[in-house]
Amino acid sequence: MRQIYLDYNATTPVAPSVFEAMRPLLTEHFGNPSSRHAFGAAAHQIVEEARERVAELLGARSDEIYFTSGGTESNNLAIAGALMSETGFRGHLITSAIEHPAVSEPAAWLQRMGCSLTVLPTDSLGRVNPADVKAALRPDTVLVTIMHANNEIGTVQPIQEISQICREADVMLHTDAAQSLGKIRAQVDELGVDMLTLAGHKIYAPKGIGALYVRRGTQLHPFMRGAGHEQGLRPGTENVASIAGLAQSARLAMRSVEENTTRLASLTTRLWDTLRDGVRGLSLNGPPTDRLPNTLSVNFPHVWGQQLLDQAAEVCASTGSACHSGSSTLSATLRAIGLDPETARGTIRLSLGWNTSEEEIDRAASLLIHAWESLNRAT
Amino acid sequence: MRQIYLDYNATTPVAPSVFEAMRPLLTEHFGNPSSRHAFGAAAHQIVEEARERVAELLGARSDEIYFTSGGTESNNLAIAGALMSETGFRGHLITSAIEHPAVSEPAAWLQRMGCSLTVLPTDSLGRVNPADVKAALRPDTVLVTIMHANNEIGTVQPIQEISQICREADVMLHTDAAQSLGKIRAQVDELGVDMLTLAGHKIYAPKGIGALYVRRGTQLHPFMRGAGHEQGLRPGTENVASIAGLAQSARLAMRSVEENTTRLASLTTRLWDTLRDGVRGLSLNGPPTDRLPNTLSVNFPHVWGQQLLDQAAEVCASTGSACHSGSSTLSATLRAIGLDPETARGTIRLSLGWNTSEEEIDRAASLLIHAWESLNRAT
Repeated sequence: MRQIYLDYNATTPVAPSVFEAMRPLLTEHFGNPSSRHAFGAAAHQIVEEARERVAELLGARSDEIYFTSGGTESNNLAIAGALMSETGFRGHLITSAIEHPAVSEPAAWLQRMGCSLTVLPTDSLGRVNPADVKAALRPDTVLVTIMHANNEIGTVQPIQEISQICREADVMLHTDAAQSLGKIRAQVDELGVDMLTLAGHKIYAPKGIGALYVRRGTQLHPFMRGAGHEQGLRPGTENVASIAGLAQSARLAMRSVEENTTRLASLTTRLWDTLRDGVRGLSLNGPPTDRLPNTLSVNFPHVWGQQLLDQAAEVCASTGSACHSGSSTLSATLRAIGLDPETARGTIRLSLGWNTSEEEIDRAASLLIHAWESLNRAT
Repeated sequence: MRQIYLDYNATTPVAPSVFEAMRPLLTEHFGNPSSRHAFGAAAHQIVEEARERVAELLGARSDEIYFTSGGTESNNLAIAGALMSETGFRGHLITSAIEHPAVSEPAAWLQRMGCSLTVLPTDSLGRVNPADVKAALRPDTVLVTIMHANNEIGTVQPIQEISQICREADVMLHTDAAQSLGKIRAQVDELGVDMLTLAGHKIYAPKGIGALYVRRGTQLHPFMRGAGHEQGLRPGTENVASIAGLAQSARLAMRSVEENTTRLASLTTRLWDTLRDGVRGLSLNGPPTDRLPNTLSVNFPHVWGQQLLDQAAEVCASTGSACHSGSSTLSATLRAIGLDPETARGTIRLSLGWNTSEEEIDRAASLLIHAWESLNRAT
């Protein structure tokens, strides 16, 4: 059985050229970038060149890029780091009801530690209303954190408009761009963000590497403590091989983002059209436009999503947010858009990637339609 | 110029079989362990098998192993996680004056957050006196954290004796074993620790991966927040490739630890004997026995350590603790053993590893002796 992988929002394969960029660092050059000898200097140079590549992808300066262990750590650093003072926690945080747990959980934790928290609702397409951000601002608001694009339904948030509101109020803005980078344009100055999260394994780099963009002048406390790596903001010996891999994936993403947007949008539309023709009552989650071009969250009527995927076992996709599946409760995103539990139980998320072909799309659509038909016959 | 790498305490090369264990995860199998389809299941199995291998190395159970991004994160999780409650910070922490910044900095931070902190002194060989631990205990003491072996001078701490004291007082004990694992025997039950830190890149696995052993029943709060990975204690998509690499490095370390102890101790003794014969007034830091078998911290009289290493440029070693060099102030370890600044300025740390040969040792000794002689003639 040949598997059809349609779960690129959960994780991507490592691109061959990314592996090739990593290989010498795993076989030959192994210095600690902090060491002053030749081995250390070579490693240090790799890290600093990588920082430039990642900065380029985001339209940032290299000294604004901090390497982390991934999206979760970047989000924790951005959010906790902003709400921390030297001796405790402070202020008010604004976020949305549609964030990834790597944002919503640090936010909930900060609230338990004494910070104030406002969680903004979204409309039925998953969009945060900038006016709600404005209305939620308080004199002690420190940070607004709203994701760039949603991992489950693909909604792209109006970050630019939110940025204007934050700038007028002199409040920091962070965005989790783990799902948008490489799929749609994401430039820190255009978006107007002070911090931005990048996760390597969503852009064809390995798992366990990420970065946080921090605009010059942003006041941020370290989250982990240790030796003085990453300008004192993120201690721990640098993950040199994966950093080199991330740099190569940034290069690839930069080169291909426009092509991806077009090609993936066309494949996703083809998938949607075929499924809709074959499944009476199929509905789409998220907006028809202003959505990630690779992401299709659909509700199959009268079946459970997992049942459908079990039946169409060649199709590898996810029912909820695949980063943390296994839970059968309604996801925060589906709750935020007001989906009723009856409809939500039939939700599956199909997410496409660089390796997805037209043949795969057609075969996956056919398998899903047949699976749905056979489940419906059975009941 | 053929470099002689004698800085294995800063970082080790990735063992060839470790790279081979990682390769398929970077080229072929790329699933997210949380995904329920075939790609996810394969990745999940890799991670769980790796957990068993790492547990075996430590004489632990696999459900007591939590994967992290490295030693720094493991230490932060162990220390902050123990001193945190659901809504704040609590209690009293005991540590030593000779810890790595990845321990001393979280400790200092917790003190600023309102915890009480006792920093125990060491004797002139870098040893913590168990009686000092006992005397420092208070009714509100939550955790004692004392490293297993020191990264700069190699002193092995009396963890077993400290453990007995902690158990009697019902206080948790954590040890940072980043430098001891693979070099000397380190079994969690023999040591009697509740938590133990492991850093991949000190045992021939890549940078950016580590683990924390947490004894069943230990009360620990997560440090990062996010989705429910690693039994809810450490969120973030698992670094599958590096976890597979860490498992293989654990296998290698387990097989070779006795041989390492013997072979490296013999090479280190040879290096010390040759240097002492050639350098009048050379002195050793740390104890002559109960020391890491691969670590030699020596003070060359009348020169600066960096000057000496610049002169003997083929020898790649470190002046202080190479994880965070570049600073020319006296390291915490050298301060703790009471070394006077005049002597400490001539300190270099030579640390040997699996690839170190007798030829390299002899050549390095000869180069260092000549460099010292020529610097002395020049002044």
